[in-house]
Amino acid sequence: MKRYERLADEIANLIRTGVLKAGEKVPSVRHASRTYTVSPSTVFQAYYLLEDKGLIIARARSGYYVREHAKRPLHEPEITGHKAETTEVDVSELVFSILNSIKDPATTPFGSAFPSPQLFPLPRLARSMTHALRHLSTQAAIADMTAGSNELRRQIALRYRVNGTRLPLEELVITNGAMEALNLCLQSTTSPGDLVAIEAPAFYATLQVLERLKLKAVEIPVHPREGVDLDVLEHSLSHLPIKVCWLMSSLQNPLGASMSFEKKQALYTLLKQHQVPLIEDDVYAELNFSNQPLRAVKSFDDDGLVMHCGSFSKCLAPGYRVGWVAGGRFTEAIDRLKLMTTISPSVPAVAAIADYLQHGGYDRHLRKLRHALETQQSAMLDSAARHFPSETRVTRPTGGYFLWFEFPERVDTLQLLRMAIAQGISLAPGPIFSASQRFGNCARLNYGHPWTAESEKAMETLGCMIDTF
Amino acid sequence: MKRYERLADEIANLIRTGVLKAGEKVPSVRHASRTYTVSPSTVFQAYYLLEDKGLIIARARSGYYVREHAKRPLHEPEITGHKAETTEVDVSELVFSILNSIKDPATTPFGSAFPSPQLFPLPRLARSMTHALRHLSTQAAIADMTAGSNELRRQIALRYRVNGTRLPLEELVITNGAMEALNLCLQSTTSPGDLVAIEAPAFYATLQVLERLKLKAVEIPVHPREGVDLDVLEHSLSHLPIKVCWLMSSLQNPLGASMSFEKKQALYTLLKQHQVPLIEDDVYAELNFSNQPLRAVKSFDDDGLVMHCGSFSKCLAPGYRVGWVAGGRFTEAIDRLKLMTTISPSVPAVAAIADYLQHGGYDRHLRKLRHALETQQSAMLDSAARHFPSETRVTRPTGGYFLWFEFPERVDTLQLLRMAIAQGISLAPGPIFSASQRFGNCARLNYGHPWTAESEKAMETLGCMIDTF
Repeated sequence: MKRYERLADEIANLIRTGVLKAGEKVPSVRHASRTYTVSPSTVFQAYYLLEDKGLIIARARSGYYVREHAKRPLHEPEITGHKAETTEVDVSELVFSILNSIKDPATTPFGSAFPSPQLFPLPRLARSMTHALRHLSTQAAIADMTAGSNELRRQIALRYRVNGTRLPLEELVITNGAMEALNLCLQSTTSPGDLVAIEAPAFYATLQVLERLKLKAVEIPVHPREGVDLDVLEHSLSHLPIKVCWLMSSLQNPLGASMSFEKKQALYTLLKQHQVPLIEDDVYAELNFSNQPLRAVKSFDDDGLVMHCGSFSKCLAPGYRVGWVAGGRFTEAIDRLKLMTTISPSVPAVAAIADYLQHGGYDRHLRKLRHALETQQSAMLDSAARHFPSETRVTRPTGGYFLWFEFPERVDTLQLLRMAIAQGISLAPGPIFSASQRFGNCARLNYGHPWTAESEKAMETLGCMIDTF
Repeated sequence: MKRYERLADEIANLIRTGVLKAGEKVPSVRHASRTYTVSPSTVFQAYYLLEDKGLIIARARSGYYVREHAKRPLHEPEITGHKAETTEVDVSELVFSILNSIKDPATTPFGSAFPSPQLFPLPRLARSMTHALRHLSTQAAIADMTAGSNELRRQIALRYRVNGTRLPLEELVITNGAMEALNLCLQSTTSPGDLVAIEAPAFYATLQVLERLKLKAVEIPVHPREGVDLDVLEHSLSHLPIKVCWLMSSLQNPLGASMSFEKKQALYTLLKQHQVPLIEDDVYAELNFSNQPLRAVKSFDDDGLVMHCGSFSKCLAPGYRVGWVAGGRFTEAIDRLKLMTTISPSVPAVAAIADYLQHGGYDRHLRKLRHALETQQSAMLDSAARHFPSETRVTRPTGGYFLWFEFPERVDTLQLLRMAIAQGISLAPGPIFSASQRFGNCARLNYGHPWTAESEKAMETLGCMIDTF
């Protein structure tokens, strides 16, 4: 990271944490230059970057100010509950019918689970594919299937190390995206009827997988900034025969919450004490706006209890279907299950990504991607403040590409979705994120697409529809 | 197919069916030229091809003769049983330990499940990959994941039509190889504890999947040439609550049996009458030496009862992990299960294969591949006749790349494997092909690799080891 980027990050953090408040003047260039012992031109570059991200604005002859939207004119949602609930899961039909209704590519894709493919270096990846296939030995076409690609495992292990986790290569199982990894982890640790602790709200695919495997959900409430409620989790672990926890410790979907370093450590201690394994779904880890690596709960794992799942689908190569799990003591069971179900991810896709990680400029791409997403988040927050009712609450995640909106109680987002689809706008309604189908007045909106006049118009239209409730 | 290839096929069929016997003189060039109304040079080309395949030999100044090995100096195995057995499956550990022991790439790979990657047009496929990625729209990177590639489905549907099966595109679900397709079919039609009719011997992965899903096997004996015993199947269907059948109707693994057209039709009638669905595992269909398409049971399916699974892994693109299922009335259930487990096969791999099918010369490659395999089969049969005890029985499949050997009763092939591994030779011992771990004196040998002096030596070594029992 360049010096001005580091400086921009520091100041962005002051804004995000409220040390610098909305409307407040940002330190003058001369002042900042002295304080941070950098050249004035570095400060200028940093301020340009922050302006570009929508965090500060320049006023003529007066300097830079923290932007108004940063004062969060829409409030943050409340903690979403205070006790765990055990629920049979029966939400799959609803999820499928909704995913079906929003898949028309002509809609404004606020309901999508993916960022815009335009944000990914697809042509560069295609070059890596050509290069990798040219150098793949004939034998590897078959050998890599059962043994897995050592080259990709080496590259992934290197990134773990940079992010604070040391892993032996042997612990890494490469999978068909994180979705397969998560399925295999769950199958390796449960039998039908077992209890699984998950988040509320949780990613809807989590609920579908539980339903498919006939598992029961224990829903642990998630704080919109701080993540899962450890007190409730501890109580549940003490009173219920929970077999495994499935949590997103960073940039949780849909709330965007990231647990702090200390909280992750405390979570690990708690799980270890109860000897309950953790499936750590960490697919958004690379999308942290601050460019600081987010520690994983896995980094504390000295007992093989954590199965840490990652993927390239959200940050590099959608459609390639390459993910992985660092499986701890469950690695062999997971690997065998994989051999019995899909055998292997696609060898060319794995080879292309390994080549890209080595030669493609992954970190540069990630910085660009995070910058784009942060800018788009600002745009959606601004737009929501303009068009949505003032009682609306909204998260303000420090990464990823989702906002979680809590509308006034009277709003029914399943009904809102039907109205929106008719106008060519999609959204992800709250009830699909809960085994008990709560969050009826909530919705997840995707800001992973470049912000356009059409996006703005769609927000305005949604605002009008919300007013009809 | 060229004229001389058609002629060679006709004569090869005369040899295979015993009309032309071993040692017998093949019609003279002049005679054949008149009988088949082709030019003498076409006959010469046909005879060169048959010589190359190891079916006939030229004797100086005397013409062409059917080769000796065609008289099958080793006899065909007996039918492998006369009644069905219902068995809890518990073979997975054994299979894994054996697959583990034979995966060393330095061994002579008689135990391998794959043909040599040298037999596949990997550089041409790589060009198709480059071409496909250049033309893949940015949107398709994500859209094709959930919707599936229409282009590949169109190409597959075309091949079905040529082979006698009409299918709507919507019935095709593209999967991560046939292994995923088979898993999804089974999950769509069963619950733990259910009975599944399978073959004995059966492909060992079938047994592993049943064990994983806690299903019970009803083992139906397979005739080494004619396929599954319909009388036993009918009796089982009448007396047992069988939920689904999982069979290989053509070039069955491990025996190589192909059911006749009439028998396939009778099988379908039987299943329809009992309303028991069929999972038709047809991954070797394209490896029929005669270049004639093998009809699938699916081609008779007027009731959506047959889930027909295919793959490019054995005939075109190992490691790409692209297969499919034509799912009949179970298509939606299968597609949804796929969305919940792996979402999609790798979009680049799918696009590359679609491009290859359109532009790459698939039929030309298949003819070359079949020719190579038939030649290698001759070489292994010859070698077995030279080195194995004369009581040894062996199949003579009309396609694929496996021979099934039945050694004298005293031979224990699990023990033989241990001895062989120590000498750098692998094989697939009989017991892994059976839920009841029968076939202790049998083994499957792979002839999918170019025949070399080393292969010959390995057969000789195996022969010596067999003599020690």
